[in-house]
Amino acid sequence: MQSPRRIRELGLVVGTLPTGPLNAITDVPGVRVGQTTITGDGLNTGVTAIVPSGWETTLPAAVAVGNGYGKLIGTTQVDELGVIETPILLTGTLSTFRVADAFLTWLLDRNPQATSLNPIVGETNDGHLSDIRRRPITPAHVHNALDNATSDLPAEGCAGAGTGTTALGFKAGIGTASRTLRTSPAGGYTVGVLVQANFSGLLTVLGRPVPAPPIDADGNSCMIVVATDLPLDSRQLGRLARRAVFAMARVGSDYAPGSGDYAIAFSTSRTATYAERDLRAPFQAVTESVEEALLNSLTMAHTTTGFNNHKAHAVPHDLLR
Amino acid sequence: MQSPRRIRELGLVVGTLPTGPLNAITDVPGVRVGQTTITGDGLNTGVTAIVPSGWETTLPAAVAVGNGYGKLIGTTQVDELGVIETPILLTGTLSTFRVADAFLTWLLDRNPQATSLNPIVGETNDGHLSDIRRRPITPAHVHNALDNATSDLPAEGCAGAGTGTTALGFKAGIGTASRTLRTSPAGGYTVGVLVQANFSGLLTVLGRPVPAPPIDADGNSCMIVVATDLPLDSRQLGRLARRAVFAMARVGSDYAPGSGDYAIAFSTSRTATYAERDLRAPFQAVTESVEEALLNSLTMAHTTTGFNNHKAHAVPHDLLR
Amino acid sequence: MQSPRRIRELGLVVGTLPTGPLNAITDVPGVRVGQTTITGDGLNTGVTAIVPSGWETTLPAAVAVGNGYGKLIGTTQVDELGVIETPILLTGTLSTFRVADAFLTWLLDRNPQATSLNPIVGETNDGHLSDIRRRPITPAHVHNALDNATSDLPAEGCAGAGTGTTALGFKAGIGTASRTLRTSPAGGYTVGVLVQANFSGLLTVLGRPVPAPPIDADGNSCMIVVATDLPLDSRQLGRLARRAVFAMARVGSDYAPGSGDYAIAFSTSRTATYAERDLRAPFQAVTESVEEALLNSLTMAHTTTGFNNHKAHAVPHDLLR
Amino acid sequence: MQSPRRIRELGLVVGTLPTGPLNAITDVPGVRVGQTTITGDGLNTGVTAIVPSGWETTLPAAVAVGNGYGKLIGTTQVDELGVIETPILLTGTLSTFRVADAFLTWLLDRNPQATSLNPIVGETNDGHLSDIRRRPITPAHVHNALDNATSDLPAEGCAGAGTGTTALGFKAGIGTASRTLRTSPAGGYTVGVLVQANFSGLLTVLGRPVPAPPIDADGNSCMIVVATDLPLDSRQLGRLARRAVFAMARVGSDYAPGSGDYAIAFSTSRTATYAERDLRAPFQAVTESVEEALLNSLTMAHTTTGFNNHKAHAVPHDLLR
Repeated sequence: MQSPRRIRELGLVVGTLPTGPLNAITDVPGVRVGQTTITGDGLNTGVTAIVPSGWETTLPAAVAVGNGYGKLIGTTQVDELGVIETPILLTGTLSTFRVADAFLTWLLDRNPQATSLNPIVGETNDGHLSDIRRRPITPAHVHNALDNATSDLPAEGCAGAGTGTTALGFKAGIGTASRTLRTSPAGGYTVGVLVQANFSGLLTVLGRPVPAPPIDADGNSCMIVVATDLPLDSRQLGRLARRAVFAMARVGSDYAPGSGDYAIAFSTSRTATYAERDLRAPFQAVTESVEEALLNSLTMAHTTTGFNNHKAHAVPHDLLR
Repeated sequence: MQSPRRIRELGLVVGTLPTGPLNAITDVPGVRVGQTTITGDGLNTGVTAIVPSGWETTLPAAVAVGNGYGKLIGTTQVDELGVIETPILLTGTLSTFRVADAFLTWLLDRNPQATSLNPIVGETNDGHLSDIRRRPITPAHVHNALDNATSDLPAEGCAGAGTGTTALGFKAGIGTASRTLRTSPAGGYTVGVLVQANFSGLLTVLGRPVPAPPIDADGNSCMIVVATDLPLDSRQLGRLARRAVFAMARVGSDYAPGSGDYAIAFSTSRTATYAERDLRAPFQAVTESVEEALLNSLTMAHTTTGFNNHKAHAVPHDLLR
Repeated sequence: MQSPRRIRELGLVVGTLPTGPLNAITDVPGVRVGQTTITGDGLNTGVTAIVPSGWETTLPAAVAVGNGYGKLIGTTQVDELGVIETPILLTGTLSTFRVADAFLTWLLDRNPQATSLNPIVGETNDGHLSDIRRRPITPAHVHNALDNATSDLPAEGCAGAGTGTTALGFKAGIGTASRTLRTSPAGGYTVGVLVQANFSGLLTVLGRPVPAPPIDADGNSCMIVVATDLPLDSRQLGRLARRAVFAMARVGSDYAPGSGDYAIAFSTSRTATYAERDLRAPFQAVTESVEEALLNSLTMAHTTTGFNNHKAHAVPHDLLR
Repeated sequence: MQSPRRIRELGLVVGTLPTGPLNAITDVPGVRVGQTTITGDGLNTGVTAIVPSGWETTLPAAVAVGNGYGKLIGTTQVDELGVIETPILLTGTLSTFRVADAFLTWLLDRNPQATSLNPIVGETNDGHLSDIRRRPITPAHVHNALDNATSDLPAEGCAGAGTGTTALGFKAGIGTASRTLRTSPAGGYTVGVLVQANFSGLLTVLGRPVPAPPIDADGNSCMIVVATDLPLDSRQLGRLARRAVFAMARVGSDYAPGSGDYAIAFSTSRTATYAERDLRAPFQAVTESVEEALLNSLTMAHTTTGFNNHKAHAVPHDLLR
């Protein structure tokens, strides 16, 4: 059985921009990730929390909807106000509201005056490998992910909200990657992404197709979180988020009718001073990061047997080299 | 102390189109409403369920966002697919996710195969009169509203999700109204609306301002549900929904920055055969119904004392005549 | 025959905020207006140009679509980039593209390097009073409006793009109004609007209905331009623009199915430093200005006979007092 | 010098679905294409007309905006009403309004009663190879394209609105392709696309990168027209249009900040009876057709020298095999 490897460890390099130190969303200063992984007894599910410093006083943000067959919570307020006012959680579809309510508990504890909150909770459907109707996520699972968020390299593959997901015919899960922008005017900035990959299509690795028998998953989707310290406003972050959705095509997504393909982008900077004409490099950073994160979500996953004895195979690394 | 009266009982007639038999959303054939009202111990909150027959096999629907400072659940999937696949629930802001999760329980019980569901839950903030941070809604409250839905005239004013809301300086709550379209080509069809009124502005009754001291509510919003049996598609229902939002101006809404002003419109017809050029009458029906429902939400409410001894006064009927 | 009067000259005061010195869009520092009026020989049409200083280096802007039955040019680029890069022109429907092309000539003359430009041209249908199929606007008409723009009070009623329009059963046209924001934090700022009123409904003056026989106009619409020196970004300007559309309800618009109801808002400030929580006053300023500008468009118009002997009557001022 | 060849003639097959007889948008019954090509004297520009039978009584349609840096005329009315009421024209950026006005002349001639029309005119910027500021398109050019539209295989590469465009570092232009849906439930239906390719990125042919020195074009964009006889409504056509934009990634588009990336999809069927769950095949048909049409736009183009002696090289076919 192969050991999980990041796509770069297999000798495959996506794009041309330099990565951050960890090649992860946590390369963006102040961004932490925490995860709770739930396995066994027919379950393969969990929670992934993306916790940017400064969320308490809101951060500029925007959502892009590629295909809206999903339950992403909080979108209309992000559209209206251009900010997130909480961290971002990812989980399995039917646990979305349970997670959101436990999230509220955590948020209310931290803000004794709050009477209105707009938690952001995204999901994809892990019902192929996990007994999704049981809605197994508890408040403890949610709080654990939030409380233990760190700036380390997040666990990829079968971890957190990616524990039970599959993509492009293989076991997938959480993936992350980052790019740094060294040249002026974007010098010193970082773009990082984290994906929860769970969609159909024909796996394509640096342009080369890697066919797999399709998995008869009950649903499929992709949640993409884009973080940056670039001084962008909500509208510009929306432009980044749309590129994140477009980048799914690079690994072979078929954007199926039943897919919930969403990206949410936020900035840890509260100033918006970045010139429109200089967005080409940030767009490239998003595109490369999403492509690499999606590949990492696959190559870091391991073959998993779950609910109803459904099985999803890890992509054989030999096929990729 | 005055008895609650519908605005028509006060001799005030909104518009020119005839009402349905009950002058309520339940005049639309197949549409039922159930409510759970929670009062006492610092609480004034509840659940209102709008249950159209045929929801199990989806109904055409659309959402309009007037001001997106709200947590309406389910919007992106309605946008994408143009349907609702569940009834519609309304409640208080911080209970939204708890209600949605209890709603899922109810839905999963009715569909043993479902692994993905898009519950629609709207909310406004009743934190001025209710201890909102307690999140008091239980699954039993939710299931009660759903299970006891009837085609009777729904309770208005301080009922269900309107138990703790205020509007335009007065105690408000749930209101409903309907219009029938007698003349060809819309003959025989009905438009009905139900509102959860909770917004600021200057109460205006048939053009006449009725000033009130503003209530220092923590939030304010308006949820509007539009039902019809007109054979409209999702895009056309979106046009109706936008008119529902526009109609808030007729009673004096100021569409405040912190307001979550939403309308969701659905049709109980699954055919879409209605000509665009004939939408003038349905638009008028929506406009009149929303104006009347909003007024009913006020005149049917009674003075309420709630959380932290906050008090909201019913609008004195004498001021309106 | 009555003399045209602004609504305030008739003793009717809209709202509570103070107006700017001219009570016009030109109260916003740097905003100029120029108009070309074409009458006679079956024509009642023209061009209205809103020329903000600083357009050459782009200004933050946003468009709101109330009902999209119209030909407003330039919207997708404003949505994407959040700016206008030209002045704004208004005209009659079928002349829109002819005006846009003449506008390009003017713009290309001023920028010898430009190979891409996004002119903003709005329109409403003046075909009831003007021989619209003749497309009578020439480049000279367009350039005259642009070149002669001044910061004076713009001509209202039957002027420029309003020469042939009707609204709410009466002759209408161009109207303008403004509000100043004296109190902190919006102190010293101005909101000004200019409207091209051409829509159906029941004229309502400060809440009082003023019925008129409906005019069988071939089309109807409303273009609203909102200018401000408030330091707002594009998203915030979008929020203002939506309120401009909502405010049409206050004078009795029925938002008819065939109406092109649009607002475009821009800021002459290039910084975006205005706090979201302080938008209540700017929203009120927009609402009051639009209501007053729409009323001015009516009370400043004179009875007009035009194409095919169609006649539109000025609203009798006696009915309003 | 190589002869232009379609990508299939080079032995390269995109996707797995069967093509229509011509592998062109004109395989959709009733869809005709006409083009006017203008070359010489520093000009490389033109007009491409897509003329579906039945446009006179409107056809269901929708627009998708990938990146809105463009001047596509007519979008808000298509969004509102869900139909096109005219054919679709493509041209060069600065000629857009001139083309639209000549289009109006043609339309008004065909409808003596019309006083409102919503012409659809898309564009990309051919200013690198053509003296764009001259705005050389005349009414005769426009009318010629409309009047001579046929159901033949449209000229590809340097033809019509593609005469002066470049993509992915090479000379590009017009491309077309189609797919037929043979299996139930979509049996017997056709999806056809026509593209005006003019965008940046790294040419990727069936996954293999084909680097080229970037062209310093003044602008870049892509207009995609999707035609089908599938019985879809406007919302569903919008879903197809979004996939058309996503498919640009498959040939290496970088969705640059200054790109106007749009798709417009229409159906020649006026019934909307197609089940949502069966959209997978139509989506695949769109994706494959767009990828192939974009490749055709390149391999059918020939090396072109134009304005200011700018030169764009055809992609060497040898690099692709």
